[in-house]
Amino acid sequence: MSEGPTGETVVELAKRRGFFFPSSGAYGGVAGFYTYGPEGAALKRHVEDAWRERFSVREDNLELDAPTIMPEPVFEASGHLDTFDDMLVECAECGESHRADHLVEGATGIEDAEALPIPEVETIVREEAIECPACGASLAGEPVTEFNLMFETAIGPGSGSPGYLRPETAQGIFVEFPLLREYARNQLPFGVTQIGRAYRNEISPRRAIVRVRELTQAELELFVDPETDRPDLSGVADTSLPLYSVEAQDGEGGPVEMTLGAAVSEGVLENEWIAYYLGIAAEWYERIGVDMDRFRFRQHLPGERAHYAADCWDAEAEVDGNWIEIAGFAYRGEYDLSKHAEHADEEFTVFRQYDEPVTVERATVDPDMSYLGPEFGGAAAGIAEELARLAERDREAFDGEAVVVTVDGESYEIPTEVTGFAVEEVTESGEHVVPHVVEPSFGVDRTVYTLIDHAYREDEVDDETRRFLAFEPEVAPTFVGVFPLMDRDGMGDRASALARELRESGFSVSYDDSGNIGRRYRRQDEVGTPFGVTVDYESVEDDTVTLRDRDSTRQIRLPSDELVGRLHELRYGRATFADLADEYEELTERAENPTET
Amino acid sequence: MSEGPTGETVVELAKRRGFFFPSSGAYGGVAGFYTYGPEGAALKRHVEDAWRERFSVREDNLELDAPTIMPEPVFEASGHLDTFDDMLVECAECGESHRADHLVEGATGIEDAEALPIPEVETIVREEAIECPACGASLAGEPVTEFNLMFETAIGPGSGSPGYLRPETAQGIFVEFPLLREYARNQLPFGVTQIGRAYRNEISPRRAIVRVRELTQAELELFVDPETDRPDLSGVADTSLPLYSVEAQDGEGGPVEMTLGAAVSEGVLENEWIAYYLGIAAEWYERIGVDMDRFRFRQHLPGERAHYAADCWDAEAEVDGNWIEIAGFAYRGEYDLSKHAEHADEEFTVFRQYDEPVTVERATVDPDMSYLGPEFGGAAAGIAEELARLAERDREAFDGEAVVVTVDGESYEIPTEVTGFAVEEVTESGEHVVPHVVEPSFGVDRTVYTLIDHAYREDEVDDETRRFLAFEPEVAPTFVGVFPLMDRDGMGDRASALARELRESGFSVSYDDSGNIGRRYRRQDEVGTPFGVTVDYESVEDDTVTLRDRDSTRQIRLPSDELVGRLHELRYGRATFADLADEYEELTERAENPTET
Repeated sequence: MSEGPTGETVVELAKRRGFFFPSSGAYGGVAGFYTYGPEGAALKRHVEDAWRERFSVREDNLELDAPTIMPEPVFEASGHLDTFDDMLVECAECGESHRADHLVEGATGIEDAEALPIPEVETIVREEAIECPACGASLAGEPVTEFNLMFETAIGPGSGSPGYLRPETAQGIFVEFPLLREYARNQLPFGVTQIGRAYRNEISPRRAIVRVRELTQAELELFVDPETDRPDLSGVADTSLPLYSVEAQDGEGGPVEMTLGAAVSEGVLENEWIAYYLGIAAEWYERIGVDMDRFRFRQHLPGERAHYAADCWDAEAEVDGNWIEIAGFAYRGEYDLSKHAEHADEEFTVFRQYDEPVTVERATVDPDMSYLGPEFGGAAAGIAEELARLAERDREAFDGEAVVVTVDGESYEIPTEVTGFAVEEVTESGEHVVPHVVEPSFGVDRTVYTLIDHAYREDEVDDETRRFLAFEPEVAPTFVGVFPLMDRDGMGDRASALARELRESGFSVSYDDSGNIGRRYRRQDEVGTPFGVTVDYESVEDDTVTLRDRDSTRQIRLPSDELVGRLHELRYGRATFADLADEYEELTERAENPTET
Repeated sequence: MSEGPTGETVVELAKRRGFFFPSSGAYGGVAGFYTYGPEGAALKRHVEDAWRERFSVREDNLELDAPTIMPEPVFEASGHLDTFDDMLVECAECGESHRADHLVEGATGIEDAEALPIPEVETIVREEAIECPACGASLAGEPVTEFNLMFETAIGPGSGSPGYLRPETAQGIFVEFPLLREYARNQLPFGVTQIGRAYRNEISPRRAIVRVRELTQAELELFVDPETDRPDLSGVADTSLPLYSVEAQDGEGGPVEMTLGAAVSEGVLENEWIAYYLGIAAEWYERIGVDMDRFRFRQHLPGERAHYAADCWDAEAEVDGNWIEIAGFAYRGEYDLSKHAEHADEEFTVFRQYDEPVTVERATVDPDMSYLGPEFGGAAAGIAEELARLAERDREAFDGEAVVVTVDGESYEIPTEVTGFAVEEVTESGEHVVPHVVEPSFGVDRTVYTLIDHAYREDEVDDETRRFLAFEPEVAPTFVGVFPLMDRDGMGDRASALARELRESGFSVSYDDSGNIGRRYRRQDEVGTPFGVTVDYESVEDDTVTLRDRDSTRQIRLPSDELVGRLHELRYGRATFADLADEYEELTERAENPTET
């Protein structure tokens, strides 16, 4: 299936050229932690900027920046403390830890072993005679346990109070809903984004930055009124989506390519909000350089889906022969805000104003306490409360002479006349609703990995294999390399002045004057720099420079003072390199054949 | 001293308008954790971007992005595990924890109680009868202990291996020196920057985002050859610096304003690298909006300085009547890399090539093991090693008939002729040097706090007190607000199209169509938006808009299609609002007095 490079190729290039590498290597490292070198840090930042532009700024959402450590009650409410677990099995022989569900999946072809109950997993381990991947000893009979993936720490001096590194940025948004609602002026829908670290104490981290213990997420939590809010699909209805629905996964045909509009009208995408975000996500992925032939949206199987999620789709990319999840799109209903409302001290609702005030009948009581008090003593207050509840629930109970209520297991008979029962007409201008949450959640590290993998190319240049990364200009770590042919005869000074000018015009620039020019081009090719500018002897004479295109290795010659404008056109897609090659054909040819002039 | 707002004013405004607020308030919060709301997150990001532009991009440094969790051996080497402590005293009465050194400073006027030995602090607490600030009980006799400020956690399943949240971003750079050196092609000097989270489990967090437990740092580690590398001071020699040297702190006069050039030549700044960074930092602080009348560079007193730091200066800003440290500039010598070289498995040096190869005499031995072996048995190998060391140290020891060496406390006499002693001439092309570290380290949160405090203004507009934040356009959360006078008669559509156009031109835009126009102006004033564009009835007729200046509240009228160009001029300081007011005076007056046209 894969047309891309092997995982080894990506990991080797990433370390050698400074994209990413295992952290603290001088100390032997620790699994699941990776550091981004200069090229990777820039690539990752550009991915974050592009995400922010598309999912926060252009959608008019609010962006938040919350701490990564949060106190325990937050995760009691969110459910992470109880259920954010993976299945752990330890090898009695060598002590290595493994994810039991992954072993089961590998041995049986079961696709979502995570959803199986633990005893069943233990049975499969025994019956399939699964062995420890590290030492080969049998794991049959070893206990499978739930291991909570949150990193715990203690806040404050002494033994402190328990805190956890957030397992997702989302909780930093949900807990602040009461304030965020005010910043959004109490109007639904509104969205809040956050780009930041999240932490998962994975049992077996793997595949470089694909499954790490410290990751970067870009999340959007959209709060909507489930009754009245609908997305505007007009801008994305014609977007083509490769949809791998539950149904398609049941068959053999693979994902089905269809327009978003058709997918909604045919019911493949049941939720319009999810459809909306799949649409803008597909466009965004293509824009930043994901190979859309190695991309799909896969619907969660019923067993994968959290019980509260009405629907959930993953964005998946194919790297190194495997499909990996790079984003998830979930309709989470009222789950998150209801949970926090239950546990916290604030309201997590928004007031929905009716178009017109409505008049409703409401049954109320106003018990005569001067009767209830003397008659029932300490039970009087409880009786009054119960009467109020009863009036709301069942007005007919007040039709007779007396009403019977039960408080703390004891029955009391109250004369109806002392309950102050009445049915009133009340005018209500609106009601409090718990917003539903739509959550597009992106893994930044996996996106970075995908971009490197999908950008990897090899070709033949001057009878040698050339490796290069065909990054989109928007995300490439460096946009343009500047090289003096040699650092003498004024070429170095001109080139560094040019580099400065390009930097001040907002481009990311790499200046390189060491080694022969061919080696310098290769170096920039390998880190995916789209363009290279060379200052040569002719530049010093006639104030022109050469501009080299990474993908074609073609070069053109143009006047130095037109460079900034042209690079802007290339950067924002207003011109292609081929356009410029046509425009500057004469100048380029003249320079190549100076005797002809 | 202060001309700024009170701390309460800043904190109230920050929460109401979405700059920052205590995290997880719905759960009662936990001291020392703050969340940036939409305005604060944007302000903070713009500060980070401005820092990156000045200290990383323009200086041609490498930027890194490392994990925040690091394994224990790193902090054994760095010394944080042993010495990153604060003095803790707990009240036996109410259980509250306090920083003992802060209590001592408050009670005595001692300035750096942190440097005192613990028994002395305990004595002062007793003699000064210091009381618990929380409950008033006497703390005399309570033990003062060292409390390590690192947050600890466990990495991996089971009991895991110990890991710590990094207390500074710097360690993520130092440990990767062996690889970073390669990315820098083994050439000194080179600098590496990182912007990211750091964690300090403060005993008593205070003053909002000034002393928090989770913070953001922007750090630069410059690796230099101490013998040969010098900064180019020519660009900053005339920069004026408010220097509060150790000497000046001894007197009454306060900081002394002098040019960087004079400070170096007069020896106030002894280290040229520190001088260089103070120069560019001063310019940068002014550029982003720090009030330079409430700013100084203060030299560390001998007691404050880490033992390895040759010199250290803090950038300090005055907020709420106090001076707070917002950055530190330290010459750390070879401390950091030597420590890691001692503890880790790699070399932390750079090869310094000599201008010309040098020939040196070297004394060597080549012991005759066929003699040493039979003669000394198991001690022979140790003797051979000791002979080699002795030859390097003291060649004259080999002048006589026999040499005496001591191995494991025993003396051995060896005939000189079997040692193979010789003096050779060796040609060396260079040597391995441990780079020295220059570290400018910036606190991003404190910078954000300072910018809000220093930007705070009050004036009278329409007989009401107006509060506004006079942010520089480069860092303001929003650059321009766009308002339809009312959302009808085509004004809303025009305004939102304009907002979209401005966003696509790279401006941060806030669109607001709710409430009366005066209230909308005030809202933008309070979040520091420099400019406002209003689309009114006239706009619909003649395609002009009004542009409002936050600081003067003055408005001018200009054609819509000239807006983007003019805003670019304002954004990059190529024009002031007053310039534009002159240029558009006629159009503006005509619009104000339509009958005159």
